[in-house]
Amino acid sequence: METLFLTDRLQTLLPAIKAFVEQELYPLETTDNLTHNFSAIEPVLQQKRQRVKHAGLWGLHLPEEDGGLGLTLCEFGQISEILAKSPFGHFVFNTQAPDIGNTELMHKYAPAHLKEAYLHPLMDGQIRSCFSMTEPEFAGSNPTMMGTTAVKDGDAYVINGHKWFTSSADGAAFAIVMAVTNPEAAPHKRASQILVPMDTPGVQFIRNIPVMGHAGDSWASHAELRYENVRVPQANLIGPEGAGFLLAQERLGPGRIHHCMRFIGIAERSFELMCQYAVSRRLSDDKFLGDMQFIQGFIAESRAEIDAARLLVLRTAKHIDEQGAAAVRGEISMIKFFTANMMLRVVDRAIQTHGALGMTSDVLLAFWYSHERAARIYDGADEVHKMALAKTILKQFRASDLKS
Amino acid sequence: METLFLTDRLQTLLPAIKAFVEQELYPLETTDNLTHNFSAIEPVLQQKRQRVKHAGLWGLHLPEEDGGLGLTLCEFGQISEILAKSPFGHFVFNTQAPDIGNTELMHKYAPAHLKEAYLHPLMDGQIRSCFSMTEPEFAGSNPTMMGTTAVKDGDAYVINGHKWFTSSADGAAFAIVMAVTNPEAAPHKRASQILVPMDTPGVQFIRNIPVMGHAGDSWASHAELRYENVRVPQANLIGPEGAGFLLAQERLGPGRIHHCMRFIGIAERSFELMCQYAVSRRLSDDKFLGDMQFIQGFIAESRAEIDAARLLVLRTAKHIDEQGAAAVRGEISMIKFFTANMMLRVVDRAIQTHGALGMTSDVLLAFWYSHERAARIYDGADEVHKMALAKTILKQFRASDLKS
Amino acid sequence: METLFLTDRLQTLLPAIKAFVEQELYPLETTDNLTHNFSAIEPVLQQKRQRVKHAGLWGLHLPEEDGGLGLTLCEFGQISEILAKSPFGHFVFNTQAPDIGNTELMHKYAPAHLKEAYLHPLMDGQIRSCFSMTEPEFAGSNPTMMGTTAVKDGDAYVINGHKWFTSSADGAAFAIVMAVTNPEAAPHKRASQILVPMDTPGVQFIRNIPVMGHAGDSWASHAELRYENVRVPQANLIGPEGAGFLLAQERLGPGRIHHCMRFIGIAERSFELMCQYAVSRRLSDDKFLGDMQFIQGFIAESRAEIDAARLLVLRTAKHIDEQGAAAVRGEISMIKFFTANMMLRVVDRAIQTHGALGMTSDVLLAFWYSHERAARIYDGADEVHKMALAKTILKQFRASDLKS
Amino acid sequence: METLFLTDRLQTLLPAIKAFVEQELYPLETTDNLTHNFSAIEPVLQQKRQRVKHAGLWGLHLPEEDGGLGLTLCEFGQISEILAKSPFGHFVFNTQAPDIGNTELMHKYAPAHLKEAYLHPLMDGQIRSCFSMTEPEFAGSNPTMMGTTAVKDGDAYVINGHKWFTSSADGAAFAIVMAVTNPEAAPHKRASQILVPMDTPGVQFIRNIPVMGHAGDSWASHAELRYENVRVPQANLIGPEGAGFLLAQERLGPGRIHHCMRFIGIAERSFELMCQYAVSRRLSDDKFLGDMQFIQGFIAESRAEIDAARLLVLRTAKHIDEQGAAAVRGEISMIKFFTANMMLRVVDRAIQTHGALGMTSDVLLAFWYSHERAARIYDGADEVHKMALAKTILKQFRASDLKS
Repeated sequence: METLFLTDRLQTLLPAIKAFVEQELYPLETTDNLTHNFSAIEPVLQQKRQRVKHAGLWGLHLPEEDGGLGLTLCEFGQISEILAKSPFGHFVFNTQAPDIGNTELMHKYAPAHLKEAYLHPLMDGQIRSCFSMTEPEFAGSNPTMMGTTAVKDGDAYVINGHKWFTSSADGAAFAIVMAVTNPEAAPHKRASQILVPMDTPGVQFIRNIPVMGHAGDSWASHAELRYENVRVPQANLIGPEGAGFLLAQERLGPGRIHHCMRFIGIAERSFELMCQYAVSRRLSDDKFLGDMQFIQGFIAESRAEIDAARLLVLRTAKHIDEQGAAAVRGEISMIKFFTANMMLRVVDRAIQTHGALGMTSDVLLAFWYSHERAARIYDGADEVHKMALAKTILKQFRASDLKS
Repeated sequence: METLFLTDRLQTLLPAIKAFVEQELYPLETTDNLTHNFSAIEPVLQQKRQRVKHAGLWGLHLPEEDGGLGLTLCEFGQISEILAKSPFGHFVFNTQAPDIGNTELMHKYAPAHLKEAYLHPLMDGQIRSCFSMTEPEFAGSNPTMMGTTAVKDGDAYVINGHKWFTSSADGAAFAIVMAVTNPEAAPHKRASQILVPMDTPGVQFIRNIPVMGHAGDSWASHAELRYENVRVPQANLIGPEGAGFLLAQERLGPGRIHHCMRFIGIAERSFELMCQYAVSRRLSDDKFLGDMQFIQGFIAESRAEIDAARLLVLRTAKHIDEQGAAAVRGEISMIKFFTANMMLRVVDRAIQTHGALGMTSDVLLAFWYSHERAARIYDGADEVHKMALAKTILKQFRASDLKS
Repeated sequence: METLFLTDRLQTLLPAIKAFVEQELYPLETTDNLTHNFSAIEPVLQQKRQRVKHAGLWGLHLPEEDGGLGLTLCEFGQISEILAKSPFGHFVFNTQAPDIGNTELMHKYAPAHLKEAYLHPLMDGQIRSCFSMTEPEFAGSNPTMMGTTAVKDGDAYVINGHKWFTSSADGAAFAIVMAVTNPEAAPHKRASQILVPMDTPGVQFIRNIPVMGHAGDSWASHAELRYENVRVPQANLIGPEGAGFLLAQERLGPGRIHHCMRFIGIAERSFELMCQYAVSRRLSDDKFLGDMQFIQGFIAESRAEIDAARLLVLRTAKHIDEQGAAAVRGEISMIKFFTANMMLRVVDRAIQTHGALGMTSDVLLAFWYSHERAARIYDGADEVHKMALAKTILKQFRASDLKS
Repeated sequence: METLFLTDRLQTLLPAIKAFVEQELYPLETTDNLTHNFSAIEPVLQQKRQRVKHAGLWGLHLPEEDGGLGLTLCEFGQISEILAKSPFGHFVFNTQAPDIGNTELMHKYAPAHLKEAYLHPLMDGQIRSCFSMTEPEFAGSNPTMMGTTAVKDGDAYVINGHKWFTSSADGAAFAIVMAVTNPEAAPHKRASQILVPMDTPGVQFIRNIPVMGHAGDSWASHAELRYENVRVPQANLIGPEGAGFLLAQERLGPGRIHHCMRFIGIAERSFELMCQYAVSRRLSDDKFLGDMQFIQGFIAESRAEIDAARLLVLRTAKHIDEQGAAAVRGEISMIKFFTANMMLRVVDRAIQTHGALGMTSDVLLAFWYSHERAARIYDGADEVHKMALAKTILKQFRASDLKS
């Protein structure tokens, strides 16, 4: 717990959540569970969700009017870190991406009938959802290049397009699809977000994309989809027409805090595994792994880097709470690449410390090593965020040049 | 081709092998083949092995008396690099670990009856083998700590022990097992290498260990085994009793060249994939990925690091050819950690260049990223090799201190 | 300004100090001043000290009873960063090492007559002092190995020993000397701190040690000294006999905050120089240096690393304020190596951005590049701090192992 | 000695030169000599030059017709490494930059009268020279931007311009000046190289630029110069008019081999100092610095990196010998950034190993740490070489794309 950002309610909440995660979820980290598809363990996780509800810990992240606690982003970030220490934490607390992002978005921008039909069961954990934006044909570094279109026809939109990395589409009840509705507008005003039930005719599920050798399934998957003449009512529009990128941007601010705090939880747990192994693995009669300076170096550097990253992310969360995401866009870019790289270094050191065991699915680390490599790519690659941050900074220096 | 180490026969051989690998094996790199278990593609690979034989390229690595070309280690290293550019190359040419190491070992030290029964079919590709040394209870950094024992009883050894990371045990005809035969001897003279047919009673196959989420099967697997009162004739001893570590050391010199050249092949292929993607992925109407300085930095650093590592490894191979492995043990440690780290950096940059696509099994990179992480661990972790090299060097400085 | 740690008085103080530093001290950064010895510019700096007094900014760091503001360590840290943006800042505000450490030490532990005679003129800026601990014959990683002795003779101590890196001894009025007074005691209880006026017979000034080619002089120097039968009254003892290491430890907690905040000031100023150059150096008609992705990478990484380090250091300062230095010794080790390395990376990137100009004394960077390399060595080398931190952490893991 | 590139004559030459450097030059590395200006030690070095002549080791690098051995670039590179192990080596053997480059250039392109008047005394060590190209107003990354002009007037060129980093101008007999003679030509054909005696009216010596705090003098200096209406005969043209950049390029191929081998010599000597200190510095009764894993890590990584870089550079030298510099321009970029960075890392680790002593001018390391930082900047900054190499590579991939 980082006392700098503690609040009264966190002082009660965090220990309760930590106890739940350690007692209910850590025991699920068996070799079998770490190698089987998600659907195999899903029934157990659904039971755990019931226990979360009984423990009064369900829906913490929701606004007060939706039965949540109305936590600040900075408060929820601290919870998020603890949930991320188990690969099942966020799912069991119903705070998993992409549902948490869709929840936030729909809470603000969805019309009442969509809230009724989709947001409420989503918040209750009865259904899942996905967010369908990335396209294989276009580089993610320039999101305004988009091939999917939504054309008005009567009172419907007719959607055509090709998407991939639509995470968790497998088994989702609906997708929020980003599609070009206003091709003649300025680049950033061309697209809209439209809710598409997954059972709408024309929604073609091509495959769960094998990632690091695993196609996965259910929530733990990334789909490739085609939309062929998919008709949905125009009333399924979320937010104003043409506001697709604006809403995506708005989603990204808090979304990056969620990701970064998740990275920190992963790093912290990896750190614990590394230290536990270092004090217990014997090298000879009187020497343990932790007596090696090389390992001490791994531990010291990891501790410093995790603590530094956590402070940086929580500070940014506080700034978003106070000033809104738009005001601190540079900072949000900064935490994204800084934290993702830190996490991957810590996981890597923890594997190296474990030796051959670290390569196996008998411990958690290999899972994170392979699947979290994506952290430096999705939601803006390192390089894109570095450019964005630097340009923000240099603009200020150019401005102060002109003044003086 | 690095002309510094080219020989006449390589000038004919290398292009022929390169053409075979590119035309016969690259097309096998489909998403399906990269995600299925090895046994699914094995029939195709067996056909490819026949084509290797027909092309007169089978058994290149063998001594002349076994029908090979009697290539030097430095020559074979250069072939090995090309084979490694496909994940199927070494298997198709029957030069895959651990069989190639067992072949070398048995050629030198196995009694005639074992050569007849096991080495010849191994060289012919009819059977596979494994090498059973690592134990989960003991740290690999100190190989003299070993729990497996072989006790004489009549004309047999009775073997008891627990091993893991016995690679390719699944489907192997025999294992060469390292076991303590002389517990009272000096630490490095306690163990022996004994050939154990896998169908001997008491050889218990526990599991293929899931590595990075995949248990794999057949040749592409790492087994956990128990030996319970396994009786084999004392005539199955390879080399002298108590010489187990000596023979293991001897195996490691060439073995590390094999590994390092394989790493270089992987790095080179990853580099090619990175560059091909950089010149073909469009960022906007007039910009390609390769126009980004960040990507140019990846490419330039990778080119320098691969070339440097290749020179270092081939030089060491040449030194082993000329002076024997024992004389250049420090150098062998040096290339191991240097090349393994280089390879992982290049693969990582190639993934970053590919973005989301790099995470998928639609390209080769993810496979190498996850499975080759072990390169910094097996056959001596980075840290162990660094210590070994430094101690060798400092010993020389201490000696010259005394002289002056 | 990092708003997380702002206090009411800092909101007034920081802008005032920043304005002073920028308006009065930045103009002193001429090529001449950056290449001449300190004594050449000292008269100007003494005038600036008067202006600090007139501006009511003198002695901010002192306790209230000594006319200071009684700032917390966390508050003073934030001032320290701003002072460090000029190489003359700390001297001009009389908060320079080693005087600030001696001031803190004497305030707590010196007897009244030493305060009268030495501490008061020191606080007033009339005299300077030094701290004489490091010895060339013994490794700094083990401070209990010490050759200097202080033997009682009548009412005097007779001191003999050889010291170096006694910073600012040139021109100092007195040294606080660490010497073994109780050779039979436990290692950490052998030494004492004794005040020695520099004009005492037997204090031999051997040389200002050339560091990075410069011997320097006056405050900006590091002396080698010999103490030959130096007699001082036993009343010159500071703190209890045998408490030398304890007091040194106590000095180090706040001392490392001072250093680390100084590193952050240096990094921040180097960052500003880098950005100013990036927006003003033209590469061609329509391109500036700051348009290069390589430079953008330098800027983005530096911004993230500086901010992260600052948060980490100020958090530690706060912990010291709240719990005392002894309670957070691991954290103090952590910020030392983390911040020193960060600072050197940022200075290095700023030089690379400036090209040939960065090598020259026409800008500040070369001065910091060469002289601040010591940051990773003095007050505990990186390696020593990493070991210390790791051991603290592993002890906790071992303890929790036993409990469970 | 890297046996891969040894030749018969090197087997005799290298040990002789090594002995000379160790016996005659290492003893000059006193604290005084490392902190005084070059002119203070120059008389001693001139005596050493005589000993080089007497030993028959003078002018080794020259073509046979000039009394040299006609060594290949690859052979001379190996000598250059040994000379670089002393900061005085190259000067004493008269193979120092920029004279060696001017010698090579004039040998090929200077008219007979200039050879007579300038080249011969230069080869004999009677005079020194400089090369005046870089201008403070223009970024080095684009050499075609140049402000200095040479306008024909009668049979003279009249030169006007502002140059800096004209190394060794202080005391030089002549400069080879790069100036625009054909402003209307294509960018790479605008400039020419013209020999200007330093005593020509209008050659204004502004200053030796302080670099890392030291202005230096004589050969060890970098001047800022102005050329104001400097008249020299048109017969002082070297090579054809407009060929300035072409000749500069030609100079750079071998020039970078010289630099890189010098870097390797520096790294090798730093490595030796690090190891010698590691085996002699005692940490406690039974532990030496070299027993620390952190130090072992420094040593192992340095050994690998130096060896790798040497192989890379000598291979490139061989390629230049065989194919000319133009054919391997990418490779030349590659060795420049790879070797410069390697050298700086090794020097840095050696300093860290030495602790406080490493900061002082009592050992060589601080000299190299500060002055050789420029290695990543001059003759093409890292970033420029990375871009150049990447573009060369990507061009080939683009070409092979088109073919297939």
